[in-house]
Amino acid sequence: MTLAAPIIEGNRLALARLLTQIENGIPDGQAALSELFPRTGRAHLIGVTGAPGTGKSTLVNQLARFYRREEDESTRKRVGIVAVDPSSPFTGGAILGDRVRMQDLAGDPGVFIRSMASRGSLGGLASATAGIVEALDAAGYDVILIETVGAGQAEVDIARLAHTTIVIEAPGLGDDIQAIKAGILEIADLLVVNKADRPGVDATERALRSSLQLGHPVERVFRHHRPAAAEPESETTRAERKIWSPPILRVTATEGIGIQALAESVQQHRQFLEETGGWQRRERVRLQSELDGMLQAALVARWHAQVQDQLYQQTLSKIVSREISPWQAVKALLNGGAV
Amino acid sequence: MTLAAPIIEGNRLALARLLTQIENGIPDGQAALSELFPRTGRAHLIGVTGAPGTGKSTLVNQLARFYRREEDESTRKRVGIVAVDPSSPFTGGAILGDRVRMQDLAGDPGVFIRSMASRGSLGGLASATAGIVEALDAAGYDVILIETVGAGQAEVDIARLAHTTIVIEAPGLGDDIQAIKAGILEIADLLVVNKADRPGVDATERALRSSLQLGHPVERVFRHHRPAAAEPESETTRAERKIWSPPILRVTATEGIGIQALAESVQQHRQFLEETGGWQRRERVRLQSELDGMLQAALVARWHAQVQDQLYQQTLSKIVSREISPWQAVKALLNGGAV
Repeated sequence: MTLAAPIIEGNRLALARLLTQIENGIPDGQAALSELFPRTGRAHLIGVTGAPGTGKSTLVNQLARFYRREEDESTRKRVGIVAVDPSSPFTGGAILGDRVRMQDLAGDPGVFIRSMASRGSLGGLASATAGIVEALDAAGYDVILIETVGAGQAEVDIARLAHTTIVIEAPGLGDDIQAIKAGILEIADLLVVNKADRPGVDATERALRSSLQLGHPVERVFRHHRPAAAEPESETTRAERKIWSPPILRVTATEGIGIQALAESVQQHRQFLEETGGWQRRERVRLQSELDGMLQAALVARWHAQVQDQLYQQTLSKIVSREISPWQAVKALLNGGAV
Repeated sequence: MTLAAPIIEGNRLALARLLTQIENGIPDGQAALSELFPRTGRAHLIGVTGAPGTGKSTLVNQLARFYRREEDESTRKRVGIVAVDPSSPFTGGAILGDRVRMQDLAGDPGVFIRSMASRGSLGGLASATAGIVEALDAAGYDVILIETVGAGQAEVDIARLAHTTIVIEAPGLGDDIQAIKAGILEIADLLVVNKADRPGVDATERALRSSLQLGHPVERVFRHHRPAAAEPESETTRAERKIWSPPILRVTATEGIGIQALAESVQQHRQFLEETGGWQRRERVRLQSELDGMLQAALVARWHAQVQDQLYQQTLSKIVSREISPWQAVKALLNGGAV
């Protein structure tokens, strides 16, 4: 008996337990997730990333509230929040004010908040996050906001695998932090200048705009072959040629200013993806990344089951004493022999 | 012919080329590294990590200068710097002043600076960094400073694998950033409050001190079995029981204040590791992590070589259409069959 059935019936406790199983790499969790998998693929996955201090959590909070505001219950969206950011209030680093502001969300049955205990997670941050997002998707959450800190490779990779990636900047964080954006601008579908009521917002937006023009990030993402000149352009090709220019939006998340425009922009990006086949392309990339991660873990586990731990430890000792290099060790171990 | 021989002779260009080969995962690089491996194990690996804005690069810069200041050339240390931090001036995000201040280091033949192009590196950040550190070690650099941003899982893991890990904090970075320290305090051998000339330095140090007392991070690192009461304590056991309390040091790196005390503390930590067997323990953990990473990559490569890409792509398509789950796909693929 897995947790799949009660989760489908809307049991929040069962969902919370499954997420813990997934995070701890417990086999039962994988079995339940496998049962739930046919129900996935409906949610809009939105990655939200940026340096510490840009106000990601407040923005995620406000977006979630916006989606919950719809009067008509039948069209109101259910919202999942996955916080992978060690500096996020959702993960426990909140000052009191943030926690109070989150109370309304936490008490709403249409919202499910999950923080990742990212430090030292054994199974790998990316694969645990992928599983958690799938469980929420299967449980019927329409929008899943994935908050990560945009200063780490693993965390940026997680945000990048969403359908829509929002990269947040803020004025006045100093040159050190501005420098980060060079790396993460390339993954942005939408750019937000948060804390837009602060001095320096014009300069921040200008800097973003010139970086965008410099980098042409969009062309890299939607690269395609040009149709031969003589060939008439098909509908599909024309749609494929549509290019998304990441808009830059000003938001003051603490006041809720600019949140509606941001939500509309998110919706436009979704439509763009659906019209151009980008939605399916991103699904495939994301699921391939998940498959590869699981394959890798399974191959390593199978190998360890076949090889005596004593041989492995002896080999390691020979590396420590510099008798053989790690490279030589791997070649020997894969041939099943001692070194 | 690999690059190993010229590197041993001190050819910097050959070293630079090898580091590029390692970063790009080129097989020649692995062969050269394998040849160089018996010469590794002499360098003191020092991880330096902290949130963006704490002044890591300036501190790394000043430590490197300090090690180069020794009058007597025979005892003067050769210094390698590996920057894995996307916000580091070493990786290209510098404002002009930083670059000017680094000129003296860049022109010194006893210093080798290498930045990692961390975004999108194919072979994985951790394994590339491990290889680069080994190459510098074999090339005769006595101290290798590894600078990472302490806000990402992968980057923190890299710093943690050094012999000595320095975690940097700074006053006035706001609550968002303070929250990060909860995660990285546990890996600190030395704690630095940088920018100690700024207001709020007392509060930052107090907060660090109480977090340290709360977390007892040292006990987790040097956990050991208590000897039975009747048994006389051996020399080794007594040494093992010595516990390292991470000191908190105030530094103003921009002015070079506190750098000498920091370098002395680094040296004390090295002695502590050597006396307690911690040096060897950390070597083993680090090399095991490297071995595991290479094994994993090799197992995946071998598997892909054995399986037709068509089967893999068909399986992926069935996942995308939700006919099978990734978990079922992995089980089928590992049994070599179609799904």
